[in-house]
This record gives sequence, C-alpha cells and structure tokens, in this order.
Amino acid sequence: MHSIVCFTSDFGTSDGWVGVCHAVIYRACPQARVVDLAHNIPPFDIRKAAAVAAAGVWQLPDALHLVVVDPGVGGGRRDLVMVTGEGAVLVGPDNGVLMPATWRSGGVAQAYSVQPANLAFQAPLPTFHARDVLARAAALLACGVEASALGDPVDPASLAPAPFRQSHAEGDVLVAEVIDIDRFGSVRLGISAAEAHEHGLDNRRIEIIIGHSRIDVPFGHTFSDVAEGEAVALIDSSGWLTIAVHLGSAAERYGIEEGTVTRVRALEE
Amino acid sequence: MHSIVCFTSDFGTSDGWVGVCHAVIYRACPQARVVDLAHNIPPFDIRKAAAVAAAGVWQLPDALHLVVVDPGVGGGRRDLVMVTGEGAVLVGPDNGVLMPATWRSGGVAQAYSVQPANLAFQAPLPTFHARDVLARAAALLACGVEASALGDPVDPASLAPAPFRQSHAEGDVLVAEVIDIDRFGSVRLGISAAEAHEHGLDNRRIEIIIGHSRIDVPFGHTFSDVAEGEAVALIDSSGWLTIAVHLGSAAERYGIEEGTVTRVRALEE
Amino acid sequence: MHSIVCFTSDFGTSDGWVGVCHAVIYRACPQARVVDLAHNIPPFDIRKAAAVAAAGVWQLPDALHLVVVDPGVGGGRRDLVMVTGEGAVLVGPDNGVLMPATWRSGGVAQAYSVQPANLAFQAPLPTFHARDVLARAAALLACGVEASALGDPVDPASLAPAPFRQSHAEGDVLVAEVIDIDRFGSVRLGISAAEAHEHGLDNRRIEIIIGHSRIDVPFGHTFSDVAEGEAVALIDSSGWLTIAVHLGSAAERYGIEEGTVTRVRALEE
Repeated sequence: MHSIVCFTSDFGTSDGWVGVCHAVIYRACPQARVVDLAHNIPPFDIRKAAAVAAAGVWQLPDALHLVVVDPGVGGGRRDLVMVTGEGAVLVGPDNGVLMPATWRSGGVAQAYSVQPANLAFQAPLPTFHARDVLARAAALLACGVEASALGDPVDPASLAPAPFRQSHAEGDVLVAEVIDIDRFGSVRLGISAAEAHEHGLDNRRIEIIIGHSRIDVPFGHTFSDVAEGEAVALIDSSGWLTIAVHLGSAAERYGIEEGTVTRVRALEE
Repeated sequence: MHSIVCFTSDFGTSDGWVGVCHAVIYRACPQARVVDLAHNIPPFDIRKAAAVAAAGVWQLPDALHLVVVDPGVGGGRRDLVMVTGEGAVLVGPDNGVLMPATWRSGGVAQAYSVQPANLAFQAPLPTFHARDVLARAAALLACGVEASALGDPVDPASLAPAPFRQSHAEGDVLVAEVIDIDRFGSVRLGISAAEAHEHGLDNRRIEIIIGHSRIDVPFGHTFSDVAEGEAVALIDSSGWLTIAVHLGSAAERYGIEEGTVTRVRALEE
Repeated sequence: MHSIVCFTSDFGTSDGWVGVCHAVIYRACPQARVVDLAHNIPPFDIRKAAAVAAAGVWQLPDALHLVVVDPGVGGGRRDLVMVTGEGAVLVGPDNGVLMPATWRSGGVAQAYSVQPANLAFQAPLPTFHARDVLARAAALLACGVEASALGDPVDPASLAPAPFRQSHAEGDVLVAEVIDIDRFGSVRLGISAAEAHEHGLDNRRIEIIIGHSRIDVPFGHTFSDVAEGEAVALIDSSGWLTIAVHLGSAAERYGIEEGTVTRVRALEE
C-alpha cells in the first residue's frame, strides 16, 4: 500500500510548495495518491510535525509518510528514507522529525541517506530538497523502488534525536510531555495506548499533574461518555493518551501548552 | 458519477484527519476521487456544514457527498447513508447536517443506518466514525455497492432535524435565515432559486429587513451588474438568494451574522 | 504533461468552490490530476495570484496552470487560454493575472478567448466562470484538446496588463517591485534568476534600497549559508531574487510590504 503517500509539512498553503511536490510525485509515479495530513505546521516546528506524523503512522501503518519540516535545508543534514520494524516507510530530513513515528511502528529497521546521484536526479535546489530529493524519493518508493536503492545505509545510532522524549516511569507515575493539541483543544500526552494499558491507566480515573494544577478525570471511550463541559481521558485516533472536554477545549480549560511536562497516575478504585 | 466523493467536515487541516479519511477511501476504492469542499468549518458548527453541503449538492447533484460534523460521535447517534429523490448520495451522522441538502435534491428517497457488522468493518473507534464507518461507507458506495447493502432502513420521519428552518411565507413576505456568509462577505439567505422565482424576487428590486435595518437592492445576474461598492441580490453558485457588494463585503457593510432571521419581499415596480 | 492541472485562486477553502472545480475537471477528464498551488490568495488580489502562478510556471514549465482571481467575473472580460513560447498552457481571466507567468516562459505564443458555444458548454453562471468555463476548458486541455479549438484568437497586444511591472535598469541599479512575501517572511523581488545573473547580482554582496532603508546582504545558495538571524539574498524555488533571514522573517526584520519599489545593485568586491 505504499502507493499512498501521506504528506506533512510546514509549507503552508499560500505559496504553492505543496502543490509543486504533488506534481513532482504524480509525474514520477502516476499511480501514486498523495494525501495531505497537515501543511500548516508552524514554520520550523519539528515537534508538531513529529506528533502529526506519528499519529498518521499509527493510523496508516503500511503507508508511505513524507514529512518535511526542514530548517537546515541545503546545509549538511541528511535526506533520509527509513523502513520501520512494522513496514512503514518514512521519508524526510534527518532532524528528528521522523523519530516518534518509528516508536509507534517497531523502531528503525533500515535507514538510508538519499543520494541524488544514485538516481539520476538533477542537482537539488539548495532551498527546496522537498521538491528535488524527498518528493522524488517518495515517488520512486510509491512505484516500487526499494528503499535500499535510493542511497547509502545509515547507522540508526547516528540519527538526530526526536523533538520530544518518550514517557518514562517514576514509581507509579508516568512522566510525559504534552506533544500535541488538536483543533478541538484535546491534549495529547506522549503516552501510547500500550503504555497506558501497561500502567493501568485505561480503565479507571486518572490523575494528571501539570505545573501547579491537578486534574482528576475518568477514562472513557469517547467524548460523549461524560456530560457536556466535563473532562475525559481516552485513547483517540492519534493513539496517544488524550485529555478532552466534551464539546469544549481541554487546552483552554486547563491552560495547557505543547511541551509541558506532565505526571500521570492511576487513582485507587 | 458516484466515484467522485465530495468531502466536508469540521476537521481542520492541522491534525491529519482529512488525509487519513482520503487514504481510507483510496484503499477501499482506488478509482474514487475525493474532492474537499471545506474542512475549516468551525468545530461542531452543524449549520455551516449543512449550508456548504447543500450548496455542493446543488452544484454536483449526482455526486456522493460525505459530510462530517459530529459532536455526538461514539454516542447513540446513527451513521446514515441517504439517497435523495434526484439521485444524490449523502453520507454522514444523523444530526441534521444532511437535511438541507435533501431539500435541494428531491427529499429523502431512501435512508439507511450503516451497520459496521454488515460490511466486515473492524469495530469502529468511538472517537473517529468518520474514518472507520463513514469514509468506508463512502468508499464502498463510490465503488458501486448499493446504499441498501450498507445498513438497515431508517424511517425518514425519525431523522434529526436540520440546523436551520426552510423559508416560509407570511403574506407577501418570505421569512428566511441567514444560512451562510462566504469569504467575500456575500450573505446567503435560506431562499432557494425556485422559491425566489415563485415569489417574484428575481426580476426587480427587493427589500430585506434584518433587525432594525432595511436594505433595498436590485436583483442582478453578477456582482459587476452594479457599480463598485454597491449592493446587489442574485442567485450565486450556492443556489441560494445572496446579497453581495461589488468588490466589497455585504456582511461587513450591513453587520449581518449567520443565523439572523430576515424578511424579504419584492418591491413594486 | 498537461494532464497535471496546477490550480491557483482566491476562492479560500471554506466555501466549496475549489472542490467543485476539481469535480468538474475530473468528470470531464478522469485522467487529470489537479494539484492546488494556493487558494487563500486574498480576495481580488491579482498581484499575489500572479506571483504564485509565475513561481509555479517557473517550477513546472510544461504543466497546465489554471489561475482564477476574477473581480470582473460575468462582466465583459474575456476567458483566456494561452500557450507560452516554452509550451506552458495557461487558463484564466484576461485581467493580467497570467501575464507574469508568460514572462518566465517565453512570452505569449498563442492566445484564445474561450467561447462556451464552441464546446457545447452550458450557459455559464455569471458568478462562477471558474466552474463553468475555465475549469471545463482546463479539463479539455488536460485530455488533449488543442487550445485553438477552445475559442477565438486574441491579439496579445490587447491583453490586460500584468499587476506589477517587470524590473528595469537605471544605470547600475535594477528597479523592481516586491512581488511576494512567503509564509517564512522571505521577500521576493521582481528580478528573475536570469536578470540577476545578467546584472552580476548573484555572486557578491548586494545592496537593496527600500524607502529610507538600505540593506546590504551576501548572495548565497541556501538559508543556512548565513548564521541564524542573519540575512541572505538568493534565488529560491520561485525563481525570483529573494531576501531571507535564516530561521527568521526578512519581511518583519525590515518592515517590507508587497508592492514596495526597491533599487538593487551589486556592491564592489
């Protein structure tokens, strides 16, 4: 199913860059289907793009994901193609933006540094590797070229780190960052569905400590499990532990911002 | 022509949901073409989504329309597939968001409550029926599956009501709500082209009373029928009676908001 | 490669117009691929749309470009199809919005005024030629119909002028307008890569005078050629001479607005 190219970037939709990349992909691989996950990532916001891409890989584990937030474009950083342990294919710059997606998909199984010369690419424009290297690489992958043919192997240990940390346990508490806030004001913590289950967070009330605030919410299955205006924790489509307010905004209610460190634990029955 | 899926939602374009639904549709029906009508509907705004979808059905009467604004997702509300009297196919939640589109397309001819079990769907995620039920249903319809195969028949009388009322006559006056304001500030009233014609509004000056204001405008064919900065009434591409200002914003000029009730009548020659 | 239709407009993404045009094109030419360059051009802003379209033609010279910013829709202005000297095909209203793209692509080789009657079109809606004339013309071109079959020849000398002027030399100074500011705050001047080279601007420090300010910047290949927060001039993907700040906004730094006239010259070594 790698003919579906999921595309995330900070290119916005005012300047034509997204459409140019679509055109480059369709030319090189007419049977590809490019679907846009998000392009209004704030400029240079690797964290937000990594969160969106990780949610995309969670939902579409066997698709190809092209992720471009690239403040170092044209400098020394590498253009990567990676295959995860579960078979997702990731394309993007080596600045950490792809790493959280690998956590959700079995880790890094293969990594390659794309070499334009390997593929008879034209010399890439130093300001637009998305168009000249990454989109072209995605197109070739969509049409069946093996990742290993696109460039040189890369030692996973040499990859740039993720823009946020994985959660870790301190006693009965899970420490995790707020990694994303969606348009409905739902707040996603960097605790995966599996981690939430392992720590017994997914079947009782949970406590979340953020700065000086303490939130105590039930765990539910959907927003309307609680009354309008009340808060609920759940695993939403992103696959992360999420705090939501039914028909309201949890981010506004609790004044939560991306990047905040939280402490989460299950409450006694 | 149901292979074209017109998609409207309040998902925004920051969180990846729209692209995930595209991917789900392309997987289940590779020959489908998904076109996005609008996704920046304000969160939970059933009224605005209903107005956009009704304009879409007016312009593309034989397409498939997927409309998702779904504050009750995962609760008891039904997932609907409907076929209109004129052959449009509508997919969305049973919260009224589809109803104004049926007014423009011959009413509800068939209605079904989509049953995931009928179709070997996986259990839908309670927070994302768009992805797991509605987009999959749209994909199957796009590939030729009959609406009746997707679920159980629904009595049209049991459907949730529309988010705004149809216009009604009081003597020589048509009473109608402001159902939509477009990006150019043009104001759409809930009076269809047919109703405008029936009440003689489409060939002379008309009077519109909104709150304490009284607007007196000519009926025209296009914006430039009047001088720059002047107001005109016309039937625009939405198929609704529209008040516009040539190279300006009628909404700003007259301080009009969505949901306002207006009284419209033809003026004597 | 005219099956790829690059689409630019001021339609926004709230009102369904873009999607309706996509649907019209896919119906008339199922093998077409519509890619969106930008639709959030400010209403009626011919200048911005012309800049985006010119950058698109620069990058995709053999594609079909549909450009619709059309304040005079339904009035007397012509619907144009043009073929450039280098083979790009341009579709849009005759209000100058297509002209800068022709400068980048060998000038106007052929121009036709689209005649709905030639093509068994329905009578176009006076408010939406994009849907009823321009998108249909683009679809036919995408499927191989010759431009000359779509309408009557037009004398290029009769075309509406561009919304901004080409640069011109005054001694050792190039005088050019700011034609576009992108989402990263990079500032594009109306000086093409070829003009920059001809005037020796692309290999040394250059001076730019804007109002009472004087900017002195190196010419580079990419943003990271200078330290974070420093300014650099370069030819970016738009093909125009661009002033950027590494990881910052040149427009904010220097208070530059679109339409400002600038004076640019190479500094002595």
